[in-house]
Amino acid sequence: MKALVYHGPGQKAWEEVPDPTIVEPTDAIVRVDTTTICGTDLHILKGDVPAVTPGRILGHEGVGTIVEVGSAVGTLAVGDRVIVSCVSSCGSCSYCHQQLPSHCLNAEGAAGVGWIFGHLIDGTQAEFVRVPFAENSLHKLPDGVSDEAAVMLSDILPTGFEIGVRNGRVKPGDVVAVIGAGPVGLAVIMTAGLYGAARVIAIDLDDNRLELAKAFGATDSVNSRAGEWAEQVLAMTDGLGVDVAIEAVGVPATFDMATELIRPGGTVANVGVHGRSVELKLQDLWIKDVAITTGLVSATTTPMLLRLVAQGKLEPERFVSHTFAMEDFMDAYDTFGRAAETKAMKVIIKR
Amino acid sequence: MKALVYHGPGQKAWEEVPDPTIVEPTDAIVRVDTTTICGTDLHILKGDVPAVTPGRILGHEGVGTIVEVGSAVGTLAVGDRVIVSCVSSCGSCSYCHQQLPSHCLNAEGAAGVGWIFGHLIDGTQAEFVRVPFAENSLHKLPDGVSDEAAVMLSDILPTGFEIGVRNGRVKPGDVVAVIGAGPVGLAVIMTAGLYGAARVIAIDLDDNRLELAKAFGATDSVNSRAGEWAEQVLAMTDGLGVDVAIEAVGVPATFDMATELIRPGGTVANVGVHGRSVELKLQDLWIKDVAITTGLVSATTTPMLLRLVAQGKLEPERFVSHTFAMEDFMDAYDTFGRAAETKAMKVIIKR
Amino acid sequence: MKALVYHGPGQKAWEEVPDPTIVEPTDAIVRVDTTTICGTDLHILKGDVPAVTPGRILGHEGVGTIVEVGSAVGTLAVGDRVIVSCVSSCGSCSYCHQQLPSHCLNAEGAAGVGWIFGHLIDGTQAEFVRVPFAENSLHKLPDGVSDEAAVMLSDILPTGFEIGVRNGRVKPGDVVAVIGAGPVGLAVIMTAGLYGAARVIAIDLDDNRLELAKAFGATDSVNSRAGEWAEQVLAMTDGLGVDVAIEAVGVPATFDMATELIRPGGTVANVGVHGRSVELKLQDLWIKDVAITTGLVSATTTPMLLRLVAQGKLEPERFVSHTFAMEDFMDAYDTFGRAAETKAMKVIIKR
Amino acid sequence: MKALVYHGPGQKAWEEVPDPTIVEPTDAIVRVDTTTICGTDLHILKGDVPAVTPGRILGHEGVGTIVEVGSAVGTLAVGDRVIVSCVSSCGSCSYCHQQLPSHCLNAEGAAGVGWIFGHLIDGTQAEFVRVPFAENSLHKLPDGVSDEAAVMLSDILPTGFEIGVRNGRVKPGDVVAVIGAGPVGLAVIMTAGLYGAARVIAIDLDDNRLELAKAFGATDSVNSRAGEWAEQVLAMTDGLGVDVAIEAVGVPATFDMATELIRPGGTVANVGVHGRSVELKLQDLWIKDVAITTGLVSATTTPMLLRLVAQGKLEPERFVSHTFAMEDFMDAYDTFGRAAETKAMKVIIKR
Repeated sequence: MKALVYHGPGQKAWEEVPDPTIVEPTDAIVRVDTTTICGTDLHILKGDVPAVTPGRILGHEGVGTIVEVGSAVGTLAVGDRVIVSCVSSCGSCSYCHQQLPSHCLNAEGAAGVGWIFGHLIDGTQAEFVRVPFAENSLHKLPDGVSDEAAVMLSDILPTGFEIGVRNGRVKPGDVVAVIGAGPVGLAVIMTAGLYGAARVIAIDLDDNRLELAKAFGATDSVNSRAGEWAEQVLAMTDGLGVDVAIEAVGVPATFDMATELIRPGGTVANVGVHGRSVELKLQDLWIKDVAITTGLVSATTTPMLLRLVAQGKLEPERFVSHTFAMEDFMDAYDTFGRAAETKAMKVIIKR
Repeated sequence: MKALVYHGPGQKAWEEVPDPTIVEPTDAIVRVDTTTICGTDLHILKGDVPAVTPGRILGHEGVGTIVEVGSAVGTLAVGDRVIVSCVSSCGSCSYCHQQLPSHCLNAEGAAGVGWIFGHLIDGTQAEFVRVPFAENSLHKLPDGVSDEAAVMLSDILPTGFEIGVRNGRVKPGDVVAVIGAGPVGLAVIMTAGLYGAARVIAIDLDDNRLELAKAFGATDSVNSRAGEWAEQVLAMTDGLGVDVAIEAVGVPATFDMATELIRPGGTVANVGVHGRSVELKLQDLWIKDVAITTGLVSATTTPMLLRLVAQGKLEPERFVSHTFAMEDFMDAYDTFGRAAETKAMKVIIKR
Repeated sequence: MKALVYHGPGQKAWEEVPDPTIVEPTDAIVRVDTTTICGTDLHILKGDVPAVTPGRILGHEGVGTIVEVGSAVGTLAVGDRVIVSCVSSCGSCSYCHQQLPSHCLNAEGAAGVGWIFGHLIDGTQAEFVRVPFAENSLHKLPDGVSDEAAVMLSDILPTGFEIGVRNGRVKPGDVVAVIGAGPVGLAVIMTAGLYGAARVIAIDLDDNRLELAKAFGATDSVNSRAGEWAEQVLAMTDGLGVDVAIEAVGVPATFDMATELIRPGGTVANVGVHGRSVELKLQDLWIKDVAITTGLVSATTTPMLLRLVAQGKLEPERFVSHTFAMEDFMDAYDTFGRAAETKAMKVIIKR
Repeated sequence: MKALVYHGPGQKAWEEVPDPTIVEPTDAIVRVDTTTICGTDLHILKGDVPAVTPGRILGHEGVGTIVEVGSAVGTLAVGDRVIVSCVSSCGSCSYCHQQLPSHCLNAEGAAGVGWIFGHLIDGTQAEFVRVPFAENSLHKLPDGVSDEAAVMLSDILPTGFEIGVRNGRVKPGDVVAVIGAGPVGLAVIMTAGLYGAARVIAIDLDDNRLELAKAFGATDSVNSRAGEWAEQVLAMTDGLGVDVAIEAVGVPATFDMATELIRPGGTVANVGVHGRSVELKLQDLWIKDVAITTGLVSATTTPMLLRLVAQGKLEPERFVSHTFAMEDFMDAYDTFGRAAETKAMKVIIKR
């Protein structure tokens, strides 16, 4: 088959590789019909994730069709159309039992991390993929849900919802600030209404993104280039700050913004991937009764989000900015890698 | 009457002052029978809390007897024996309504802080004290509960329980690390069993305090002078870390210890009062699904803790190390101020 | 002033009565600008609520303007436009402290019930009303919210949300059945989206009401005259039943419907007022891991719902079917009392 | 091997049967070292559970040693000492994912019930047992925990904790009434302290059981033969009733007692197995803001309870009243079946 293979920092190719085969009785083989590229894939290509070794097929998002199942797979069958979850879950360790398979103790190498596709094992940017723990990692697709919508349920929509909205404990009537209106920030914005937020304030440096944020459900937007961004946000509350501040960038300055905007008793939910320490102003925060949360998606909400998509309550196909055929996978990377220029949000690659 | 009056950094006196009087219809005047000194009082005396101005009577803990009530006080009467809560609560603002009177919007000066005794208004280290919002700030004492036990319910026991145990979301079977075995750390340890902790590990530099921690309910102790303190703690878990780490010191090093010990999915509850920023290693923590909480006691659990004391399930009189008469208030401060030497934990001052 | 006075079963009059005056320092007097009639008022007029004695002014819903405040009222002022909550809350008893003022221990006569307007004290169907515990029972109205919308926040919308949606623990993606599409059922339907329900199924005997239910947000409707109503509902789930079933009628048959439709692990929230026992089939339910909840509104969510109304996220003015002037109060009762015929939902009476 | 085989109502034998073998790749075969008898087994023997057909080996509790594992079992090995959970859990269906395997959709026959041992498949009252979904249904036993303690974690202790204490939402400081002090009621009483109950009131008709209840942790006892049992219980609260009432008998009269004792805002947790309808007095309860819960144990708390046992915080070996060898299995049944006479609580049968 063909696949997108990592060959060390800065190097990748869409090339011929051996087809995957069943290794464990709990495996399935899925023919990939639709996949996409994540910002994490770009990080890997820069060499930022040393656990990814040359020769690895990238990708952890996908929709496809089962072509083979292992002997212990009873609830899935050849021909089933499925979403491939970005997180692999053994279903029986203590973390899977607390619905936190992001720390699955039995996934590849018992590394304590459930994200293994395109990381510790071969991924979904390929014609076929081997899926471990198939019954816990694949979700059957109902009729009437498009591949474009469904592939957003592999990672990005559950990430925004679980790590942003749910960790942030958004509740009806809340004012929520979302710092960063990139794809993940937009996933937060799209799902903030599931807990009844009254106001969702998008904060970004880019007016185009802020415009998009409003289309995704933000009620207000603030361009943080403006010196008085904090005053603007506080003016949308009773002056005490927002109930929930969600960091969706991953640098010290935006984390600091979140802690500055939060009201006493509020929650700062960190979604951004951080490469270095931040300064936490405990001299101000110790008295404020705040919670700060972090997390890697567990994708346990994928079935729930799928029900909402099937009912037309969420429209994740709105994330799609470009569509490519698999043979143009290198072009897809090029377009996604120059997002500022191409205005790429999520690029779809279809068989 | 006589009272302990702050006269600027380093200066205090037990001296004659005017008796307090009813100011608002919701006030009560309480004759103080028993009071105590908090570490915060020592900070104030060093000049660390600029909001406290010379002439202020100190103290925010006390047990006493009502001698007068305002015209709007209906559920309390002269002669009632009461605990004075360290937090004043209007009972009607949005923070009081969410059971977070630590941020009461209507307490003195609408400063957004419920701790006003010995801070923004005169306090309990006096023969009499005016108590605003009496119906929300006084708790009737049942027969059979000693003043010594009851005065610990003004502040220290609810602080340990609310900001440590409850914010830390301790649940049955958890392994809990408590960093710092001073009075507040011991209050955490005493109440950790209320949510069924399996193991409570006390961590401190002082072997005497660690010994005391075991008497208060710790199952294990670790002296952090030892280089391998982290290994010792991890060996008491499955190697992944503790479910809850509670910081009860207030310096960057101990906060860092808490984040180092926490397992994926766990909670770090900060109880310590911090004077400067800490480094938060988000490059490690972003993926760990942890929550970090802060808080100032709201003392909303005082009635509940009182029920447990009345039933003999908690014995807070164990905190008492020394007892003084009011006329020896200056000696009480001296003894408490040299705690390392005098082994003072909580000193009781009685009328 | 003029008021609507109950004179015993079947007897009422819009007549001259003395103006109310401040009794307690925590009282306020409110000029009623807009009020409405509740189904409970009709029950009272039938003589079903013996605690209501002849001479009582009816009504527990209203929007108005403060004309006088007691000496202990500090956060409200003459001229403030306010919503009068149907529940009076002392703000300091154990029930108010747990946000359950429906059982306030200090409201009129210490009867343990927070609903006292038009029940144990004079109510809001009058030109003026005395409001006890004003700071806890009045909510300032922001500009831009109409009286028609605001008066629905006195009782009906918080009832639907608190006792139906919140007690029912609706969560994102849920399938919710609402049995009974009268005013309270519609309030449930209007607020079910605040916790992200995927499907809201209205069940009623009346096709007109079912039509209305869809306008209020129901995704599906089932007429329970049809023999196969249960099959119809189950067909909208995976065959196991609904996540939440909300009873909004108050008779044994509809309660039984709710327990029949509920899936294992689900919640039945009873909102209906019942006059007699129901049969609970524990022989079937003991094994089903269900919760059944009951409740009287506490109206603690009125400020939150008001934020959503101010943001245009909820439009409770949709409940209004008829509008009357105060001098036509008897006509308003007549129209509301013949709702089946007049298609009255909520009738508004304005000064 | 030998096993206890059901041969229709009233008929059973300890007899020779074929050894179990691996059927599915996720199975394990366990040599049973210690087992016990449940009240449910007596019901089955009376013919009350028609799903149990003649020829079935009974029993759903056990501790043993793994002697063989299927090809998909990776985290367990031959020689491991294990607790056999009474509930089988596929680990991948929607109910297992919400930690409710009592309704597992993939256990035997997809009947929607996780209790299959000694019910839908052969059970643990045998020398060997086949365990489906071994990785989700077996728990490794740490050194230092006796078989006698461990076998109580198969069913009875998690039942008392999950369906009584946890469903009842016991919280620190609560007053809890436990109606019925048989084995399950005692399991409730033993675990009520895990959420910090202040008072645990045992209610039963039998003074011997009430005595035992106190040894298991009840603070108070009430013999309900006394006409004034309700008054006695209310006198232990503030007169409003208990926070949590747990029904552990299973007849209409005791369920009614629970609803009579409950305070406004409290929870009634039903643990008893009911054979017929009860009368639910909604005319009184609709206004009381109560929750009524039901449930079949999911045994998801077995690992947590095991940690507490290993730490010496729980001592479930106290349940053991008699011990038998396997060859005397018929005597064990005889003794357990005449519990009133023999004072049997839990009888242990050891290899």
